[in-house]
Amino acid sequence: MALHRVQYLPLIESALLEDLGLGGDITTDAIVGPDERTEAAFVAREPGTVAGVRVALDVFGVIDPAIETEMALLDGSEVAAGQTIASLSGPTRAILSGERVALNLLGRMSGIATTTRRVVHAVAGTGVIVAETRKTTAGLRALEKHAVRMGGGMNHRFRLDDAVMVKDNHIVAAGGVAEAVRRVRGRVGHTVKIEVEVDSLDQLAELLEDPVDIVLLDNMPVEVLAEAVRMIDGRMITEASGGITLETARATAETGVDVLSLGWLTHSAPNLDIGLDF
Amino acid sequence: MALHRVQYLPLIESALLEDLGLGGDITTDAIVGPDERTEAAFVAREPGTVAGVRVALDVFGVIDPAIETEMALLDGSEVAAGQTIASLSGPTRAILSGERVALNLLGRMSGIATTTRRVVHAVAGTGVIVAETRKTTAGLRALEKHAVRMGGGMNHRFRLDDAVMVKDNHIVAAGGVAEAVRRVRGRVGHTVKIEVEVDSLDQLAELLEDPVDIVLLDNMPVEVLAEAVRMIDGRMITEASGGITLETARATAETGVDVLSLGWLTHSAPNLDIGLDF
Amino acid sequence: MALHRVQYLPLIESALLEDLGLGGDITTDAIVGPDERTEAAFVAREPGTVAGVRVALDVFGVIDPAIETEMALLDGSEVAAGQTIASLSGPTRAILSGERVALNLLGRMSGIATTTRRVVHAVAGTGVIVAETRKTTAGLRALEKHAVRMGGGMNHRFRLDDAVMVKDNHIVAAGGVAEAVRRVRGRVGHTVKIEVEVDSLDQLAELLEDPVDIVLLDNMPVEVLAEAVRMIDGRMITEASGGITLETARATAETGVDVLSLGWLTHSAPNLDIGLDF
Amino acid sequence: MALHRVQYLPLIESALLEDLGLGGDITTDAIVGPDERTEAAFVAREPGTVAGVRVALDVFGVIDPAIETEMALLDGSEVAAGQTIASLSGPTRAILSGERVALNLLGRMSGIATTTRRVVHAVAGTGVIVAETRKTTAGLRALEKHAVRMGGGMNHRFRLDDAVMVKDNHIVAAGGVAEAVRRVRGRVGHTVKIEVEVDSLDQLAELLEDPVDIVLLDNMPVEVLAEAVRMIDGRMITEASGGITLETARATAETGVDVLSLGWLTHSAPNLDIGLDF
Amino acid sequence: MALHRVQYLPLIESALLEDLGLGGDITTDAIVGPDERTEAAFVAREPGTVAGVRVALDVFGVIDPAIETEMALLDGSEVAAGQTIASLSGPTRAILSGERVALNLLGRMSGIATTTRRVVHAVAGTGVIVAETRKTTAGLRALEKHAVRMGGGMNHRFRLDDAVMVKDNHIVAAGGVAEAVRRVRGRVGHTVKIEVEVDSLDQLAELLEDPVDIVLLDNMPVEVLAEAVRMIDGRMITEASGGITLETARATAETGVDVLSLGWLTHSAPNLDIGLDF
Amino acid sequence: MALHRVQYLPLIESALLEDLGLGGDITTDAIVGPDERTEAAFVAREPGTVAGVRVALDVFGVIDPAIETEMALLDGSEVAAGQTIASLSGPTRAILSGERVALNLLGRMSGIATTTRRVVHAVAGTGVIVAETRKTTAGLRALEKHAVRMGGGMNHRFRLDDAVMVKDNHIVAAGGVAEAVRRVRGRVGHTVKIEVEVDSLDQLAELLEDPVDIVLLDNMPVEVLAEAVRMIDGRMITEASGGITLETARATAETGVDVLSLGWLTHSAPNLDIGLDF
Repeated sequence: MALHRVQYLPLIESALLEDLGLGGDITTDAIVGPDERTEAAFVAREPGTVAGVRVALDVFGVIDPAIETEMALLDGSEVAAGQTIASLSGPTRAILSGERVALNLLGRMSGIATTTRRVVHAVAGTGVIVAETRKTTAGLRALEKHAVRMGGGMNHRFRLDDAVMVKDNHIVAAGGVAEAVRRVRGRVGHTVKIEVEVDSLDQLAELLEDPVDIVLLDNMPVEVLAEAVRMIDGRMITEASGGITLETARATAETGVDVLSLGWLTHSAPNLDIGLDF
Repeated sequence: MALHRVQYLPLIESALLEDLGLGGDITTDAIVGPDERTEAAFVAREPGTVAGVRVALDVFGVIDPAIETEMALLDGSEVAAGQTIASLSGPTRAILSGERVALNLLGRMSGIATTTRRVVHAVAGTGVIVAETRKTTAGLRALEKHAVRMGGGMNHRFRLDDAVMVKDNHIVAAGGVAEAVRRVRGRVGHTVKIEVEVDSLDQLAELLEDPVDIVLLDNMPVEVLAEAVRMIDGRMITEASGGITLETARATAETGVDVLSLGWLTHSAPNLDIGLDF
Repeated sequence: MALHRVQYLPLIESALLEDLGLGGDITTDAIVGPDERTEAAFVAREPGTVAGVRVALDVFGVIDPAIETEMALLDGSEVAAGQTIASLSGPTRAILSGERVALNLLGRMSGIATTTRRVVHAVAGTGVIVAETRKTTAGLRALEKHAVRMGGGMNHRFRLDDAVMVKDNHIVAAGGVAEAVRRVRGRVGHTVKIEVEVDSLDQLAELLEDPVDIVLLDNMPVEVLAEAVRMIDGRMITEASGGITLETARATAETGVDVLSLGWLTHSAPNLDIGLDF
Repeated sequence: MALHRVQYLPLIESALLEDLGLGGDITTDAIVGPDERTEAAFVAREPGTVAGVRVALDVFGVIDPAIETEMALLDGSEVAAGQTIASLSGPTRAILSGERVALNLLGRMSGIATTTRRVVHAVAGTGVIVAETRKTTAGLRALEKHAVRMGGGMNHRFRLDDAVMVKDNHIVAAGGVAEAVRRVRGRVGHTVKIEVEVDSLDQLAELLEDPVDIVLLDNMPVEVLAEAVRMIDGRMITEASGGITLETARATAETGVDVLSLGWLTHSAPNLDIGLDF
Repeated sequence: MALHRVQYLPLIESALLEDLGLGGDITTDAIVGPDERTEAAFVAREPGTVAGVRVALDVFGVIDPAIETEMALLDGSEVAAGQTIASLSGPTRAILSGERVALNLLGRMSGIATTTRRVVHAVAGTGVIVAETRKTTAGLRALEKHAVRMGGGMNHRFRLDDAVMVKDNHIVAAGGVAEAVRRVRGRVGHTVKIEVEVDSLDQLAELLEDPVDIVLLDNMPVEVLAEAVRMIDGRMITEASGGITLETARATAETGVDVLSLGWLTHSAPNLDIGLDF
Repeated sequence: MALHRVQYLPLIESALLEDLGLGGDITTDAIVGPDERTEAAFVAREPGTVAGVRVALDVFGVIDPAIETEMALLDGSEVAAGQTIASLSGPTRAILSGERVALNLLGRMSGIATTTRRVVHAVAGTGVIVAETRKTTAGLRALEKHAVRMGGGMNHRFRLDDAVMVKDNHIVAAGGVAEAVRRVRGRVGHTVKIEVEVDSLDQLAELLEDPVDIVLLDNMPVEVLAEAVRMIDGRMITEASGGITLETARATAETGVDVLSLGWLTHSAPNLDIGLDF
């Protein structure tokens, strides 16, 4: 679950190239001399949960290895407004030139961690697991899934090849839940779990005749969800998804489902406001 | 201002590899036969402004050129809930396997366009320009800046090398506004505009002794902003930024500033909810 | 389980660059005129199971889209010595220049499929699943895992993030099987299966107090394996690995294990001998 | 003939990404704490010739520069079963996470070196040169050709642009050996050698009227080969290829040919069995 | 205006791969032992202005970090024939193997700087700015624009998105200068300058009715240029281009134009002759 | 010797990204409507030899496949001032946006072909071969070597691994010519030629005691060169290099050397002036 540098260094490099262009930071280079040095700190402007601290600091390692960095907070830590997250020391030019790329990554990852943590707090004590989906940003999935973990969530499948997820369109294509399940069995490896999405208690009843590993209870009102959990009675891991908000998360969790999966943890979490103070 | 395929095809390819992994869409491949064909449509689940339609359709061109696509709406169009954005026809397997990557891109770009459009509507008639900042997602800046344009905004600088932006830390490093401006003049090319950020009317007064192309009036209350605009009296393009929300945008615009620049257009816009219906 | 072009086109491109170098096919360009055309066919020189036919033909699509190709056999087909696998028609130069890269990919993939098929035949009727491991060639894992499927095998996990595999070194680090399992539970997502490797019946007994999804019975003689299967009694999926050869595969399968996992399917399968005849 | 890091670091990076996926080594991360350290050693499980030791160790440099490595054997060394090849010391997590990628590269390269060395021993004293062909793995040619050198072989041409090789299909296209040779002369640079493949003594006789640098004697029985060598009488370098096995290599060499070129050195050499012991 | 390593390291890596191929420096590896060390120096064979010193030294950092380097001259320095530019110390093999790639980069960049400096000297005292164009080498624009700066020039726009340049074909497409300008206004961001090319005083007169930021006076004889400058009278930045040579540069500058833009600074500057002495 | 698209498409893509940036061609997009179409032609502004016509046209295939292209001249053709090289037809926007990248490639390649052709003409009838060196532009070697061929030259070695070139520093390291040659023999493959550089007739005499394939006669006055050729008397291919200009080429060739190798064919050839006319 740890993030390795080899997983995100290419992203840092392309983000720097995207921002430096061909001419580099023409403002800084005109104003700041090459030998000036400074200290700076990443400081939260609002409370939240940080994620991506190492990633943000590695931006400076790429732009200039002469910059020294120090983490004040580990990924997953709570941060108060005004609190320092990490500090930098080194050539002023390089620190200014790398600032925006670092903040963009740190702000997004911390935004996701903060949003996840809020849901985790909302459902505290219910034992429910909070998970994201595949609704992530192109090229940033490893970072965004990491941020969910740092917020206290657990990861759903990483991609299409690591778990079976039979959805409504699959069921239509197969002509029914039972047939879809039948086709999957024996065609996927023994290390792969099978999850099936159902939209109604009727579909659930059909599935219960030949239960799989996980059932996704999609877009069900809380009372229907509760009834579904009773019907399943522990024979499958239960996952609720669709239409769940921060406000309804606790009631949903209290139905007894095992997992809440929430697309908005990654696709619509606002950035955490963080600045770089000199 | 048009987006070229060469600018985003590598992103589509890496997003598909991120999602397909090594084994591909094991669910679909187990359930759907290789010769099955289907039709499908991108349909908005909520009203908004679409952006990225061509990008989303090109996902399918990459995964299988046999898929035929047709745009129902051009980027920048308003879409109603339930309205079709584009349609697809071709091998069912490939359509299902590319669905999530396409939706992730289309949802994010349309979310940014929709958020921008809301601000543009809020300030309608004031003549103010709505612009984003460099607070974009690593690797997606070209797409996100395009989405802002499709929402009716105009782009701020694309990166560090295409305009000078003297910020607070630069002013500190130079020892004052006047000195910072002096250092920049004569060191940047003749095609580059110079913008300076000021935080107070005192700094503004200093800048007005040697005006530049654009002044960024940072984090000023509306009444101070109005006074600043009066002081500047058309000698510089005026840009307001910092702390402006959808609610305060109109009042800010009515101070007479020329441009509102808003980081949250790109870093915190929620996705537009769009689905793929079969 | 289908292979998508986006998964292997970059490999084809780099393989062609590796072989063409900077000057291209200097022999062919000196001898063959630019307008000469020819027909050619991939023909097996020995019997086996083909895999990678589409991949090999796509080499020619990359080198010159004017080449027309036709598959005579689908991946997974048996081929006899002298039988045609696919045919080509088009510019002679491009066909000669792409020949080696195409044959290298087709020969390797068919070699793996052929080796897998031999094991599958050896264990026919036992119901055992034949699977490969992560002992694949750098950069070719998707192709090699596909070839195993085409030979009639099933894929083990694709990489480190899609299933838990607790091995001997993990058990040492944790201080025992039970503690290792305890640490894993609750720290991995709900879509992930847990597999634990045991080397002895004692370790197995310890594991059976808190069974996981899959047990890897490592390097056990057939009689010990049979005893292990009896002890497990269906409570975990059973996988045998280590020291199994084509000769011992059937006896191993007849112990009642569910899966045989064999590193040599991918790391030591000889190429299938295939030529390109004009 | 030395291998430079810049030639294989991208391969290491892509192999690690292939194996780590998006979530990394979920097993190790769940079981092993981030501060645990260990020592480990690459140990041969069977005797052979090692190649790729530096490559394998550089895998750990990429995954975590905090890992210290030490080579016990240089590439090209003989290794006994149970003998240590190299040792590692550092964070347990990173060592476990990089193990498979490193072993896959080391095992393959050592397998090729071992196979080559066996042939070299078989022909010892004959003065013949043992060479590989272009039948290498896509993306790994530099590593595999290096492994052949480490086994005591010499490299044949690296790719299509560094030597002329007129093969049967070229001869057909030109309408004969003499015409093919005529076309090549004067069309290739002065630094390039010309090699021509002949299948019969008749073709050889035709070639001897206008000899080139090297002749490839393809698929000839030993007695025909010996006659060919007599006919050539030192006027061309002689290379035998096709149908030569470890068993027939010596007899082939004793015909007096200068070079044996063997595709199976690279395309079908089994991996050398090497493990990482903690 | 500083060049960052992240902007050119990929170019160094691909240039090394282009030169090393698969087998590396076979000459050096055959002759020089792996433990031999040497000292070497980049020495100018003719006088000029150096650029790319750091870039050239970083070639050796990539090929072997054990090589120590020291700059004797900074980019932009004048160098005499026989003068040392930088020195190296380390493994002989790696120094020899990286020599050509380093010299190719250093020679080209210094050639551009030297050519630029000659023009700057020719126009000394006139206050004119010397600028390059977009006529640069594919993939090397950042390096070539840097070299122009090091020669004392200033950069024109970096690419198509950072300034508007209305050229003859645009004017034709729009139906006239005035209409072209009208279409641009309001469609480009507030940070972007607008430049319009005119070929005649008539076109200039049309443009002066609605002046833009910069006017490009294309291919005008010196006397016409002087008249144009008088007509413009400071209302636009004036740039002369087309047909200007080192010989005519001063007379052109003395017309009072603000900028000379010269394509041949980058597309036809001869390399500066530099060698690596051992 | 033909150039394959797979060898240069990545360069076209990166050159387009370099020029389009993130916002694309803001001038054209503001002025020209998306549905406008035009015809255009590449026209030579001065006489010369064209190279890179297919490469330049493929720029438009990448930017918009709707553009139709037609070659009027093949690579290697002479072109007069005012003559059409190729023509285009399609969307005006895309043609204007790709123009500069296409012209930059075509101008450089044609400049090299033209310069080469001039030398070839100067030595016509002497039978000497004109060759370039490895003094090429990073990333463009395949294109530049192709341009030399199109100008009537022949290629020297492509890179460090395809021929041995023993230079002065190697001789110093080995302690003499004879020892350097001795070290090389037996350490390089049988397909590789050996070339040795000598600076004096004494060194040449030493080399003649054990001749290699090619001798590079470096920086010798014409009369010394003639004496060297006499001494060699056909036992080695003779190559002259160093200090040869267009003016001295013929006299150098008339000494009877086989090859002239000229670095300035690639590193200092001025672009051929070509425009795109609408």
